[in-house]
Amino acid sequence: MELEFVRKLVQKNDTKIVLLVVDGLGGLGRQSSGPTELEAADTPNLDNLAAHSLCGLHEAVAPGITPGSGPSHLALFGYDPLKYQVGRGVLSALGIDFDLRPSDVAARGNFCTVDDEGMVTDRRAGRISTEKNQELCTLLREIEMEGVELLIETVKEYRLLLVLRGENLSPQIDDTDPQAIGEPPMEARALTPQAERTAGMIREFLERARDILAEHHPANMVILRGFSQLPSWPSMEEVFRLKAAAIAGYPMYRGVAKLVGMDVLETSADLGAELDVLEQHWAQYDFFFVHFKAPDSAGEDGDFERKKALIEEVDRKVPPILALKPDVLIVTGDHSTPSLLRYHSWHPVPVLLWSRFCREDGVDRFGERACMHGGLGPRLPAVHLMPLALANALRLEKFGA
Amino acid sequence: MELEFVRKLVQKNDTKIVLLVVDGLGGLGRQSSGPTELEAADTPNLDNLAAHSLCGLHEAVAPGITPGSGPSHLALFGYDPLKYQVGRGVLSALGIDFDLRPSDVAARGNFCTVDDEGMVTDRRAGRISTEKNQELCTLLREIEMEGVELLIETVKEYRLLLVLRGENLSPQIDDTDPQAIGEPPMEARALTPQAERTAGMIREFLERARDILAEHHPANMVILRGFSQLPSWPSMEEVFRLKAAAIAGYPMYRGVAKLVGMDVLETSADLGAELDVLEQHWAQYDFFFVHFKAPDSAGEDGDFERKKALIEEVDRKVPPILALKPDVLIVTGDHSTPSLLRYHSWHPVPVLLWSRFCREDGVDRFGERACMHGGLGPRLPAVHLMPLALANALRLEKFGA
Repeated sequence: MELEFVRKLVQKNDTKIVLLVVDGLGGLGRQSSGPTELEAADTPNLDNLAAHSLCGLHEAVAPGITPGSGPSHLALFGYDPLKYQVGRGVLSALGIDFDLRPSDVAARGNFCTVDDEGMVTDRRAGRISTEKNQELCTLLREIEMEGVELLIETVKEYRLLLVLRGENLSPQIDDTDPQAIGEPPMEARALTPQAERTAGMIREFLERARDILAEHHPANMVILRGFSQLPSWPSMEEVFRLKAAAIAGYPMYRGVAKLVGMDVLETSADLGAELDVLEQHWAQYDFFFVHFKAPDSAGEDGDFERKKALIEEVDRKVPPILALKPDVLIVTGDHSTPSLLRYHSWHPVPVLLWSRFCREDGVDRFGERACMHGGLGPRLPAVHLMPLALANALRLEKFGA
Repeated sequence: MELEFVRKLVQKNDTKIVLLVVDGLGGLGRQSSGPTELEAADTPNLDNLAAHSLCGLHEAVAPGITPGSGPSHLALFGYDPLKYQVGRGVLSALGIDFDLRPSDVAARGNFCTVDDEGMVTDRRAGRISTEKNQELCTLLREIEMEGVELLIETVKEYRLLLVLRGENLSPQIDDTDPQAIGEPPMEARALTPQAERTAGMIREFLERARDILAEHHPANMVILRGFSQLPSWPSMEEVFRLKAAAIAGYPMYRGVAKLVGMDVLETSADLGAELDVLEQHWAQYDFFFVHFKAPDSAGEDGDFERKKALIEEVDRKVPPILALKPDVLIVTGDHSTPSLLRYHSWHPVPVLLWSRFCREDGVDRFGERACMHGGLGPRLPAVHLMPLALANALRLEKFGA
């Protein structure tokens, strides 16, 4: 559904909506018939809430598609992730809390290994340490160029961020990452005539980086991809007429929230601390996005028991959220991160939507199998959740007479 | 979802995917509350597989739309059947294993009856026998024309195939079939200037056919429709990076598989023989499309008991397929063919998708009613099955960072 369509139906009132995102919530059983992390967890409060909620499973992008954090959160915020795409450069900047300006051009970089003929032999430079990366970034910062400021930041391990700051820069530049080994890095090529000047700067940067890194095998070259600028999207205030706040301890999620115009509140990544921030700012906003990262990390570590325990921590925090008396409370994840797979997966994600008007659906457990039989169905496109939240907050007028 | 979108996420590995299509699988009860053919069948192996699978019902095109074999199979292969449309002429050629070349123009023909004023009185010429059709085609083959080879083939009963072979032919020609009785056959009209020459050939062919058939009432004329050429679509290898093989005893299904670039393996239409071919070629391919035609034919004959027995034959063949250790196994139909209706229908089709990572959904019977409660939901667009199969084979990277 188009944002423009929803925008025309929105009306303001004084209701409050809370979207609690338990990162990587969905899972799999250790054996195919066994309970998932969520099903194995002891969650009396979530189960009780589910019994009075509309339940289901959502998909951020499409069946079978595993979403990254950017697309999955945009979908939860009501923005079609296929239409609202963010470049990798921008996402990398968001992920390290880099204060990107609208005219900046950002690229995601890899330290890589090239052989004597200049062919890429390892796109990740033997996965050098973050400390080594920091050393090398310090060296690269020596590169100076007329008419542009070069900002170089360590992301993690072999990953870095390159930002060009200046006037009349263009992100219309092709990747230099060949995405294969045995091939040379590609030359930074302008995709439009307007990008010619910026592409020339990138070529010069890469030549000088090659010289500086020559003696630093395996990290003796840099490849770049995802040249991009901050998108200029309608804000949640413009589209949904919601004064929206993000409470998220990790940079990536704060960054994506900023892209849709949320105010980003100061917090640590601890769920208890996040809920304190929620309570403190309760009067000031209509919509709160609360993000809890730890269960995803546990899933990526393959730690079924820790993920389960972290979900139980979420469960204990449900009563204090309800005590604030939200009009609509959504509890869900952005994607599944089964500890069996140790990374994001395509599996639909449990979701419950509670409001006074949600129409209970008979589901009385918050878990993957139980939610399959809920009123939201087993494969709700996540982008529909925001209109549902607004409807349940009585913030949408009817369509047509 | 666009093929181009999926293509960018595909990665190769050494997993194997089997898509077993039981033609016309879905059905209806003899009484509205009674079991369908599949539900009435004794299917312990399919039921056990369903218990460890993700289940649901799929729709090839859209709710209420009865798909032909072309669109339904294209959807199962991941190609949107509304976007990837095949002309009737080409489908007719595929259906009789005619070796169509890319520059050929094919048309589907009907022998029909015209009265003394040349008005069509029966679009199917009293449903003449296939033998009579063959006699008449022999006569029509006498027609020769400068600059083009005319290939005329019996399809079945009143149906024939006309293929023009030559240079610079165009399929942009309007149907001559008036699709109504009491009207004359329409003149073959070029839809573009480039098609003028080809349209002239068709007009000449039809005039001479009228003369030759004059004394063969009720089959005293031919009407043509669906002028078309072989489409040039991206192959499954290009889109999904799958080396794909089709094991299908009937020409239509081999033909549709060829359109998406599958290798077509030699086999009879017997399911046992098809599975022998599967086993023999197991090492050579990543993806196998196995097609079992007989249940559809039983449904078209209105033979509930025979369709049920054929489904039980499928059930007995499940263990040998599993013994090959596929990474993903999908069992489904291309459409429903209820013996109550005796033809293809719009009813959603049971589907199960088994993999180690499928997330079981509690459905423990393979049947129409049971599958409604599965994790794929009661109306999965069939085009999503291929991305789901690839995801379950761990062949898709995540979308976005």
